[in-house]
Amino acid sequence: MTQILSSAPIKKKISKDLKNECKFLIENGIHPYLKVILIGNNPASLIYTASKKKFCERIGAKCDIIALSEDIDQLTFLKTIEEINQDSNVQGCIIQLPLPKHLSHLDVGKLISQEKDIDGFHPDNLYAVLSNHESTDHFVSCTPKGIITLLLENNIEIANKRVAIIGRSMIVGKPLACLFTNHDATVTLCHSKTLNIREITKECDIIVSAVGIANMVDESFISSKKNQVVIDVGMNTDTEGLLCGDVDFEKVKDLVLAITPVPGGVGPMTIISLAQNLLQASKNRLSL
Amino acid sequence: MTQILSSAPIKKKISKDLKNECKFLIENGIHPYLKVILIGNNPASLIYTASKKKFCERIGAKCDIIALSEDIDQLTFLKTIEEINQDSNVQGCIIQLPLPKHLSHLDVGKLISQEKDIDGFHPDNLYAVLSNHESTDHFVSCTPKGIITLLLENNIEIANKRVAIIGRSMIVGKPLACLFTNHDATVTLCHSKTLNIREITKECDIIVSAVGIANMVDESFISSKKNQVVIDVGMNTDTEGLLCGDVDFEKVKDLVLAITPVPGGVGPMTIISLAQNLLQASKNRLSL
Repeated sequence: MTQILSSAPIKKKISKDLKNECKFLIENGIHPYLKVILIGNNPASLIYTASKKKFCERIGAKCDIIALSEDIDQLTFLKTIEEINQDSNVQGCIIQLPLPKHLSHLDVGKLISQEKDIDGFHPDNLYAVLSNHESTDHFVSCTPKGIITLLLENNIEIANKRVAIIGRSMIVGKPLACLFTNHDATVTLCHSKTLNIREITKECDIIVSAVGIANMVDESFISSKKNQVVIDVGMNTDTEGLLCGDVDFEKVKDLVLAITPVPGGVGPMTIISLAQNLLQASKNRLSL
Repeated sequence: MTQILSSAPIKKKISKDLKNECKFLIENGIHPYLKVILIGNNPASLIYTASKKKFCERIGAKCDIIALSEDIDQLTFLKTIEEINQDSNVQGCIIQLPLPKHLSHLDVGKLISQEKDIDGFHPDNLYAVLSNHESTDHFVSCTPKGIITLLLENNIEIANKRVAIIGRSMIVGKPLACLFTNHDATVTLCHSKTLNIREITKECDIIVSAVGIANMVDESFISSKKNQVVIDVGMNTDTEGLLCGDVDFEKVKDLVLAITPVPGGVGPMTIISLAQNLLQASKNRLSL
């Protein structure tokens, strides 16, 4: 029977560890504190930021959502971030994407200082992933980190496996390709210009889709051997307005070894990674 | 008939352009100046640095090889680099690898300031490649850049093609994977832990080997369709002490569409890229 890679049991287990770590940090004078910068009223962004705040508070960390107006001017926006960068009480800061059009030219990866960039978007943090330089001083992007955690916690081997990643974004596809390579997998990074993509995905042991197209990955992407693991990063709405992934779950689920559900798969893993990174950033302060 | 992808005609053509650019820069008060830091007497390193110096001088740039003793202490080594970083007459600096053992813990990518790092090893330069942020302020690693130039100059299409890269180093494999992806190719990054590597290479349009094992890539890696392009980054010595690549040229050459020779293929392209980057770094000074 197909294994459904639900994040729920992992969330339960890791939450317990994170609660204990958080308690230890507070006892040692550091109360982990995340600031989330939210611009405008994008409905998905409101849900995501609320989930992040809820989970931080669940493990005992503080989290403020700094809600900025859609038409905030660039100078005020940058000043807000700079104040957070300077605030020694705040260990982590993230900017909820997407940015409004008039700010989208900013290189968002460079705005938050490296040691507070718990989203792992800063050049130095991405360089650490690219160069396979593991260190508690650097942060791995949350979704890629969460996917690796999900696989490891389910005892799914990564080394020596072939992985097809669909989507070459800086948030998921590219850092995930680096992470899988660091874990000794052989990665093919597919994208909108890839021809014969189904030939590639059929040959791989693990398929990750991170493209944002509802139900794009159907049975035609899957090998007949029933030995594949499918990871769905998509958070889309289908034609009826319901939340769905990039993978057509109903069509694919009986053809594979294991598959993540949407919701309840990769999404919560991303939030767990964020909390792990926040506590790591806080621990780094302990040693200062 | 198989196309032999010799660098000679490209070198001739690009040299002419670079000479003109160099002349223009000198007329405008900037004499392009490269410093190459060479530690010890590694025979290959002596040859490589001499080739780099020769080509720089051929196009009219200055190049000094700073020869340091094999047992130089870390402090003196770092002080030497810092002086070059501060020297406004020097636009480019590279450290010839490998470093001696007692210095090999240093993160060589971070030693030379980003704007003089014409080897493209600095985190900010690699980040620019990873994020597909093309800009004259950033430098693309020389061997990957040279390989793309070699393909483009020979009118070999990259977009929509499948590429197998063998070797995941920070100098060739990883930045090259990023570059090919930026050019809309679909890349599979193979390495020592890849199983069934021949199945992968046989399916690809372009095969790049950058592993440093003499004659490893033989006919068993090649498709029977005679439609592949093979790029050989290796600079090895065979059992008879002769220079050879990663690819067994004699066994492969009649089975493919095009192949680089060793020597005379990728090696000189790397030096051309270095000179291009040096002039780019010098031009960046013009606008200051």
